[in-house]
Amino acid sequence: MPTIADIEAAARRLEGRARRTPLLSSPFLDEIAGRRVFVKAESLQHTGSFKFRGAWSAVSALDKDIRRKGVIAFSSGNHAQGVALAAKLHDIPAVIIMPNDAPQMKIRNTRALGGEVVLYDRAIEDRDAIGAQLAKARSLSLIKPFDDIRVIAGQGTTGLEIAEQAAEQGIARADVLVCCGGGGLTSGIALALESRATGLRARPAEPAGFDDVTRSLASGTRQHNTRLSGSICDAIVTPTPGELTLPVMSRLCGPGLVVTDDEALHAVALAWSRLKIVLEPGGAVALAAALFRKDQIETPDVICVATGGNIDPDVFVRALTYLG
Amino acid sequence: MPTIADIEAAARRLEGRARRTPLLSSPFLDEIAGRRVFVKAESLQHTGSFKFRGAWSAVSALDKDIRRKGVIAFSSGNHAQGVALAAKLHDIPAVIIMPNDAPQMKIRNTRALGGEVVLYDRAIEDRDAIGAQLAKARSLSLIKPFDDIRVIAGQGTTGLEIAEQAAEQGIARADVLVCCGGGGLTSGIALALESRATGLRARPAEPAGFDDVTRSLASGTRQHNTRLSGSICDAIVTPTPGELTLPVMSRLCGPGLVVTDDEALHAVALAWSRLKIVLEPGGAVALAAALFRKDQIETPDVICVATGGNIDPDVFVRALTYLG
Repeated sequence: MPTIADIEAAARRLEGRARRTPLLSSPFLDEIAGRRVFVKAESLQHTGSFKFRGAWSAVSALDKDIRRKGVIAFSSGNHAQGVALAAKLHDIPAVIIMPNDAPQMKIRNTRALGGEVVLYDRAIEDRDAIGAQLAKARSLSLIKPFDDIRVIAGQGTTGLEIAEQAAEQGIARADVLVCCGGGGLTSGIALALESRATGLRARPAEPAGFDDVTRSLASGTRQHNTRLSGSICDAIVTPTPGELTLPVMSRLCGPGLVVTDDEALHAVALAWSRLKIVLEPGGAVALAAALFRKDQIETPDVICVATGGNIDPDVFVRALTYLG
Repeated sequence: MPTIADIEAAARRLEGRARRTPLLSSPFLDEIAGRRVFVKAESLQHTGSFKFRGAWSAVSALDKDIRRKGVIAFSSGNHAQGVALAAKLHDIPAVIIMPNDAPQMKIRNTRALGGEVVLYDRAIEDRDAIGAQLAKARSLSLIKPFDDIRVIAGQGTTGLEIAEQAAEQGIARADVLVCCGGGGLTSGIALALESRATGLRARPAEPAGFDDVTRSLASGTRQHNTRLSGSICDAIVTPTPGELTLPVMSRLCGPGLVVTDDEALHAVALAWSRLKIVLEPGGAVALAAALFRKDQIETPDVICVATGGNIDPDVFVRALTYLG
């Protein structure tokens, strides 16, 4: 199980590498939400998502002789870019296995960051088999997207910053809503808050139809999503919570929140208009939950983690039509 | 003349009020510019532009008995919002005189922030006469947009942060390009850098056709723009440099840089794509200069101040078409 000591160690490895992203707010969002809303803008992190934290944490923790052979990762895009950049900065190769229906921009960026992208067809190919073969042939180390102590610890450094920034802003009691896929970020933040900010509690936010974590927390048993594609929130669609992350979330998190794709797009538009930041739909579900599920929140303040901003222009233009 | 002591005093008044905005970068922008590019994202400041700094600095420095009667300002939008919010947080009235062709969003936001907006027609009405009459009748204090020591000092706090952040990033020598209207921000930053970062030099960036500061610096005498509207960069269109700001810029700044409206829109698109921030065209001219006037820059690194992000959706959608 990851601990606060793992997060503190990751924070030392990330010192001067990850950006300390700002905690933003707007009176216009407060009005919609009926309480003070703060947005931790991890979309401003290197590669446009929090994933760089976990990727750097994991890559930097590898034994040097093993590391120089390179790393491999599976990802629809944000983890891909995080691993590609972490590998590039370590001057080692990175093979990234991506579904061929991932957003084009994420595929292009991963390549431009030096990643060797291998595309596969989700419907007919077995990505695990492809990955295992490549990893073995080239002695590559697998950097998992969430179910890894060092990855969770890296994501948890976001929680250390939230604890500090909340204290600076005089936020004593708040739910911390986290856009949640496999739960690496959510569990990492939950662990950091447990030690550093007892008035703050993490809660996962998910898109409707892909609410495996919310249902797992509610039922007390692991739940699966019936579909694996078809959400506009591609960044946070995973089949089921992680083996490591679910026990942490079960122990520490409040109930999950679920929003529709329309609400996520609306939140993208409001983040553009009111905070001047670019979010992808999957990175906006926490903000959407703060704005459109306010009856499910009881704390005087709410903090939303905006997890990523890697969005194709056509989707973004569509989101802006929600401003009305 | 404003001094570093004025800026330090303004920084104390702004402590805990203004956001310390991040210094962002992207390997993709470095590649276009042919050098390291850093962007000081003042678009993430309260009200979406650096103007909040100067407004708060000026309003907070007023004598309390005078201040409670209220303030008045002339502005096409960003200064308007900065003054409206500074007044609201001081719980005093703010009258804002705005041209009726200002971006609708800026007019709406100024009103929503509690500003009492008075619209006038640039072509046929005399805004100074309107303002003077209102100020006299209601004993309002005029908060000038740039030609005021306390305003310049407030904007200069951006320069204190740039000096610190440049040191953190290991930037020893760089031009600091500043989107420039009347010169309040440019001169404030120049003064801060003179004291705190001798390897950094401020340079104004302006839109073509509205390059009064660039021509004034080049000729050594005050120059005027022939037009006062017709640029997409509405935020930084002023008739001529300030009486206080021009001597400071003449003493401390490097040559100005001039970009086209097309280049400003292209920079808006690249900031969206690569930095995940929202800029208005007038807030993107410094970045445009770094990307598209690289032959006019000689330093190994360049810092661009992204001054604002208050843009209407239709203009933003148009900017995104520049991604090609």
